[in-house]
Amino acid sequence: MRRWNGWGDEATVVELPAHGAAFLAERVGPGQVLADASLEQVLAQVPASRLPTHALFTLDAEDRVRHARGQSLPDWLAMRSGEFGVFPDGVAYPQTAEQIRELLAWASAHDVILIPYGGGTSVAGHINPQLSSRPVLTLSLERMNKLVEIDEDSLIATFGPGANGPQVESQLRARGYTLGHFPQSWELSTLGGWVASRSSGQQSLRYGRIEQLFAGGSVETFAGTLELPTFPASAAGPDLREVMLGSEGRFGIISEVKVRITRLAEQERFYSVFLPNWQQALLGIRQLVQARVPLSMLRLSNAIETETQLALAGHPQQIAWLEKYLALRGAGDGKCMLTFGVTGSRVQNAASLKQAKKLLKGFGGVFSGTLLGKKWAENRFRFPYLRHGLWSAGYAVDTLETATDWCNVDSLLNKLEASLRDGLAAEGERVHVFTHLSHVYGEGSSIYTTYVFRPGNTYDETLARWQQLKHVACRTIAENRGTISHQHGVGRDHAPYLPVEKGALGMATLKALSAHFDPDQRLAPGVLLEQ
Amino acid sequence: MRRWNGWGDEATVVELPAHGAAFLAERVGPGQVLADASLEQVLAQVPASRLPTHALFTLDAEDRVRHARGQSLPDWLAMRSGEFGVFPDGVAYPQTAEQIRELLAWASAHDVILIPYGGGTSVAGHINPQLSSRPVLTLSLERMNKLVEIDEDSLIATFGPGANGPQVESQLRARGYTLGHFPQSWELSTLGGWVASRSSGQQSLRYGRIEQLFAGGSVETFAGTLELPTFPASAAGPDLREVMLGSEGRFGIISEVKVRITRLAEQERFYSVFLPNWQQALLGIRQLVQARVPLSMLRLSNAIETETQLALAGHPQQIAWLEKYLALRGAGDGKCMLTFGVTGSRVQNAASLKQAKKLLKGFGGVFSGTLLGKKWAENRFRFPYLRHGLWSAGYAVDTLETATDWCNVDSLLNKLEASLRDGLAAEGERVHVFTHLSHVYGEGSSIYTTYVFRPGNTYDETLARWQQLKHVACRTIAENRGTISHQHGVGRDHAPYLPVEKGALGMATLKALSAHFDPDQRLAPGVLLEQ
Repeated sequence: MRRWNGWGDEATVVELPAHGAAFLAERVGPGQVLADASLEQVLAQVPASRLPTHALFTLDAEDRVRHARGQSLPDWLAMRSGEFGVFPDGVAYPQTAEQIRELLAWASAHDVILIPYGGGTSVAGHINPQLSSRPVLTLSLERMNKLVEIDEDSLIATFGPGANGPQVESQLRARGYTLGHFPQSWELSTLGGWVASRSSGQQSLRYGRIEQLFAGGSVETFAGTLELPTFPASAAGPDLREVMLGSEGRFGIISEVKVRITRLAEQERFYSVFLPNWQQALLGIRQLVQARVPLSMLRLSNAIETETQLALAGHPQQIAWLEKYLALRGAGDGKCMLTFGVTGSRVQNAASLKQAKKLLKGFGGVFSGTLLGKKWAENRFRFPYLRHGLWSAGYAVDTLETATDWCNVDSLLNKLEASLRDGLAAEGERVHVFTHLSHVYGEGSSIYTTYVFRPGNTYDETLARWQQLKHVACRTIAENRGTISHQHGVGRDHAPYLPVEKGALGMATLKALSAHFDPDQRLAPGVLLEQ
Repeated sequence: MRRWNGWGDEATVVELPAHGAAFLAERVGPGQVLADASLEQVLAQVPASRLPTHALFTLDAEDRVRHARGQSLPDWLAMRSGEFGVFPDGVAYPQTAEQIRELLAWASAHDVILIPYGGGTSVAGHINPQLSSRPVLTLSLERMNKLVEIDEDSLIATFGPGANGPQVESQLRARGYTLGHFPQSWELSTLGGWVASRSSGQQSLRYGRIEQLFAGGSVETFAGTLELPTFPASAAGPDLREVMLGSEGRFGIISEVKVRITRLAEQERFYSVFLPNWQQALLGIRQLVQARVPLSMLRLSNAIETETQLALAGHPQQIAWLEKYLALRGAGDGKCMLTFGVTGSRVQNAASLKQAKKLLKGFGGVFSGTLLGKKWAENRFRFPYLRHGLWSAGYAVDTLETATDWCNVDSLLNKLEASLRDGLAAEGERVHVFTHLSHVYGEGSSIYTTYVFRPGNTYDETLARWQQLKHVACRTIAENRGTISHQHGVGRDHAPYLPVEKGALGMATLKALSAHFDPDQRLAPGVLLEQ
């Protein structure tokens, strides 16, 4: 059963190991545990729905609770405290595009707001209903999760928009294919959600971002259905897929998704290399990607993240031996872990591995084989579960991400980390901050920063701490040529910072598109574009 | 000096070899030569300008003649016959973004139409002025052709929009870089034109289309300046670069272009392989690209194109020997020539070559080394000059292109060739038609078809033949799931077929954007979107 107040399946429990707790206590102080509300307490608060009954949606209180919040830290605090604030008035589960169109027409006729809902994994407030005089109907696509068809010549698969990561991959793998899209939210997030929020997966270096994978499909809007035909490429005017990629539900509801798939590779391996320091590591990863070495994944942890990961990894004795070995080879204090993947034919992988090792050796890289890479691959979707372990130990954790050109990566990363590290200094709290680069491009890189801090004495105090940290970090990004999101999207939380990068005419253009597709502003109002 | 009535520099002359003429005479009949008008005759027709004099533009008749037409076959017939019809009333040569903004404001104040002009290489009627009660000012970007700056960390170069292919590459190569964008029009076409028309270069397999190379820049519109900041990737809402890519001058005038560049590769080689027949060749090229073998170029000629190219190549004796050798190895009648390139490090290229050879051997491929590949590379920009040689010998030549998913490539190609081959049957004329695939993707391929036919007894008859052929071919593409253009754009010639692929809501969306950026419809009206 999916957790109603946290991440993933209730059966999966990831605890913070004892030495991990000690590591954090040393860095930010002893944990501060707050009491959780129960589902019963929350259900008792759910007000009467303002919607009539209807065959296509339910007014059930638990459905409304389970679709009221995403997975941002404020969402987490709301769910843990039980202070949800607003619930949707109902939840629809359409099974066909026809039913989506019926719901759109019904919402128009009854002056209702619609919130498209994929996997509910937003960390930027995309799916949270707001106080409004109009009733709010959340439209979950979870029943439209089937593989409709595979074109095996063109390697295009047609899916319902509500298929989540495991549903996508299991249906494809049974036929020998993969989509290759593995965001960390993969277990719960959905194809339609990936498209709507311009998602990026951990192996985007090989498979591309969702922008490259999304071949076409259908979108139901208040102005009609937008059919997006599939072409391998086209010069026939602006690409309308790009209008929908990143539209975050504001322009329409994606009712069918066609994606570019790949035959399962002959071989896949993940390796790790330790670089002696951050500057060498940064040069090495940049050269690897700019030389177009055909790798499938690159992830570089900075020194603090490397230290933190090794501390939280378990097996302290093995780690101590590894560190001794690395130090002897020149990667001691300040070392940075680089994980990279090769995916493809054996011939190709061998050539790629050879090139990568040679290039990284030039930067002092110490190759440590596949052991840690394998561990990374096994645990790649477990990090969100660790929030539970941290919370139980009395720590709040959140992540932030951006992307910028290489000339600015180091500078922005430093400013971003500093803004968070010092963000609670006024109240004498320390924040543990660490970063990795996980999506690298010839032009630049994403920057993915994790920060751990202690909850306050109350939920309100904790939320205030988060707001302070989030705000300084977002301002730092916006003022220093970062995009406000590389992979999480804009939602409500990032919307105030969007005008810095889109500019006045860019914002007016997005508003003109919103008015074109949704003249009454019924679709997720306030998301992406502030009112 | 650039030709006023044809392609390229007057000093470059490409004639049709004698055996080439015999080859065509056998296929479509003896050539039919029409008389050319002189520049003086055309200049005598240029009417008085309806514009006042202004420091930023000229009313000179020759400037107006030289900017009145592109390079489509109808443009060619207009230039050769001297029947231009309409000329722009003036030609502006702004040198700065500030001057572009000044011209926009001036055009608004004086009710003038503006036609943005890059290299004048459109083959779809993008830059042709139309009869209008409003005066028409063509705005040439040719003076804004400088490399402004290179960010060597992020591999981003900033250019004026009017830099043409040689200007882009020479300025980059001097610093050790390449853009890697080589459309056949490269000698004349410009960076801004490539962006506005979603251009694709011959080595797009390695470097990407202009969509992947265009990192950002500025666009001057009637609604203000749109600044497009550079990010390696972003999930911050829809990507506004994509609104301008393919906008064909309808939304604004590109005043600065930032592109992603690459360090010059250690090694580049082009090879050729002959496949025994089309079906094997098609499977081979599809598998190569779907297996992601890191090649930089793939070009597959069908049997008729292979035969035609060998016939027009010169050195008939050498060709005869080659064909004898190929036949002995299993590639006789019906053989198809595949040219492929590797570009990168020696290690990588060796691995790619090995994979490609092995895979193609499985489809009966006979490897014939680098000789023909070298020839292709040397002559890659000469094909447009051959139109002169063919015209002098009494033949008209034109090309058409589309792209479609692999499941449809063979079928659409056959229908397209048949529609052209039989297109003039009613008047007893034969058409020589041949095709290659030059831009291949995992999902599908471009289809590039060349057709040669005899001019009629008059220019009007010749134009009527072209209209007949163009129409049946475009209808065939539109009705059979092809995009109306993979690389040439929409312009005026393809605009009637665009609604088939964009749909009613898609067309309405583009019109809403046009109204947003250009409320008085002053920018190239009728291009992309019919009125």
